[in-house]
Amino acid sequence: MHTGVEKGVGSMGFVTIRDVAREAGVSTTAVSQILHGKGRFSEPTKELVRRTVQRLGYIPDSRAQAMRSDRTHMVGLLVPDLHNPYFADLVSSMETMLYERGVGALIGTSAESVKRQDAYFMRILSQRIDGVIAVPQGQVSDGLKAVVKRELPLVFVDRRVPGLEQVPYVVSDPKPGLAQALKQLKSFGHQRVAYVSHPSLGSFSVDERTQAFRELAPQVLGPGAAAVYACDGSSSSQEQVLSDILDSSATAVIFGYSRDAVSLFSLLRGRNIAIGSQLSLISFDDIEVFRLISPKVAIISQQANRMGRQGVRILLDRIGSDLEPGSQAVSIATRFQLRDSVGRVA
Amino acid sequence: MHTGVEKGVGSMGFVTIRDVAREAGVSTTAVSQILHGKGRFSEPTKELVRRTVQRLGYIPDSRAQAMRSDRTHMVGLLVPDLHNPYFADLVSSMETMLYERGVGALIGTSAESVKRQDAYFMRILSQRIDGVIAVPQGQVSDGLKAVVKRELPLVFVDRRVPGLEQVPYVVSDPKPGLAQALKQLKSFGHQRVAYVSHPSLGSFSVDERTQAFRELAPQVLGPGAAAVYACDGSSSSQEQVLSDILDSSATAVIFGYSRDAVSLFSLLRGRNIAIGSQLSLISFDDIEVFRLISPKVAIISQQANRMGRQGVRILLDRIGSDLEPGSQAVSIATRFQLRDSVGRVA
Repeated sequence: MHTGVEKGVGSMGFVTIRDVAREAGVSTTAVSQILHGKGRFSEPTKELVRRTVQRLGYIPDSRAQAMRSDRTHMVGLLVPDLHNPYFADLVSSMETMLYERGVGALIGTSAESVKRQDAYFMRILSQRIDGVIAVPQGQVSDGLKAVVKRELPLVFVDRRVPGLEQVPYVVSDPKPGLAQALKQLKSFGHQRVAYVSHPSLGSFSVDERTQAFRELAPQVLGPGAAAVYACDGSSSSQEQVLSDILDSSATAVIFGYSRDAVSLFSLLRGRNIAIGSQLSLISFDDIEVFRLISPKVAIISQQANRMGRQGVRILLDRIGSDLEPGSQAVSIATRFQLRDSVGRVA
Repeated sequence: MHTGVEKGVGSMGFVTIRDVAREAGVSTTAVSQILHGKGRFSEPTKELVRRTVQRLGYIPDSRAQAMRSDRTHMVGLLVPDLHNPYFADLVSSMETMLYERGVGALIGTSAESVKRQDAYFMRILSQRIDGVIAVPQGQVSDGLKAVVKRELPLVFVDRRVPGLEQVPYVVSDPKPGLAQALKQLKSFGHQRVAYVSHPSLGSFSVDERTQAFRELAPQVLGPGAAAVYACDGSSSSQEQVLSDILDSSATAVIFGYSRDAVSLFSLLRGRNIAIGSQLSLISFDDIEVFRLISPKVAIISQQANRMGRQGVRILLDRIGSDLEPGSQAVSIATRFQLRDSVGRVA
């Protein structure tokens, strides 16, 4: 994408129709009409505008372009990381639903980096697309502002961005599934439950789960029945958390971050601890490996498919309508799914 | 994307510059020059060409567009399935390498469907891109022909397409890693080795591994030391394969398809069979779960990162050069990595 490097061009790093009009000394309407082959202008004026467009690297507004030439039936999808099976599920469910509706997807990833996210947004704006669905990095960035400024339909899924309340979003509510999990543990005789958090990730949704546990565990199990252990993903941290939990009186453990659950599952196996009888285990996230290993791991599912499909529905509604964009907040309830990794206390 | 629905327009479902020229009754050179604002033509001729372009929904050739307005620094990446960690690794390594070189990626998936692959190709051709890297479905399709016809730089990775020999490709050679694995097993005293194939998948590369095993196992272990068991991924098939292997005299098993390895790992655990001592286990594909479970699973790695990076290198070379496209075949050697799932025969 051509970004405005000339002095005074584009307050946000890209060239607008206003920049072209100012440089060429004509109105924005004239620029628009000349580019669309409309209106009556002298050849020198047309030539000047075309040269200015070329020199500044102006890319006609995608939204206006889409409105002019009908819809392009393409949308951008941005997720943080395709290595993470949860995001792979989320993006695949969105792509498939779009495909079924005759819409193509142009997928990109941010690698959890604001800079890389913004590079994707800047590039996707120069493509022929009708809208974008994004799992955003959690702050107002230049790239996000650019998408909003262009009035390109935009929907957030899984996360939202404080300060951009006008963007519709679909997020997951950790509480319903977590409450079901805690009630199930209680009914199986568990009186003390450990929770493994992962604050070093800096993820809004992972931290929100920890908050939900701190709030719900005392309500369901009573005061003092729950403890939170922070893991940072390193081997030493995993070993430390495991030792702390085994030294405690906890008979069950809930993981807020699924990668920690996979790692500790393996460490527990290595210590010959019987998962499901000696220690019960539950993890957030419905990832395939939890169905493949033995015993199968009970989960609190974020309903990635439902979230993705809801996001697609909102985006397609917005693309199809002439309504002014407005805020819209959808919360998808998590669900607990009991599996063999959870058993009764002997 | 606008597809040609008018009678007689576009033999492959989309509008070409020839269609515009024929409809407008001018030469293709005239169409090209008018669209690029070059040449000397009367206003009525220009207007006729512009209207014809608009009416037919002609999208200027991406390659010509890219050559005209310099490069777009965007490429398309097509993989079969983001749920498969191997393809998630492959596409992520390509996207990251492109990002480091200032090139954006527009990722799509085919869901192992020729129809969906072709829908991606047809759509990506209407975007502003410099080239495409694809893990293709294994046959010459309309979508593939369209990309080749447009002379858009194209590289295949992981698979190739018989009949499209002019397209450069980077594939994996299963033999080096498999030979290393078999020699390691032999040095640990294993005399009989089972192999689990997955012919129902219809994957060229998975079937090629089976072929390699049939060829190499007798060479390394001697005649009659190896047997192949076909698994179709169903529970009953997995149980059957497991029983057959346990009933045989095999002391080690190699999996051609990593999902089968994950499932059977779990079933072996359920039967309290000590992996690494009672039965040694090796799988193709370097996926994360093999490093997370205990014992860690020995792998024959396809070197997805190396393959992806090599594919990117070839594509960027082709985009940057004026050379005629020509065939180029790169084979990346697989590598065996010993882990605790492989042990000595007692």
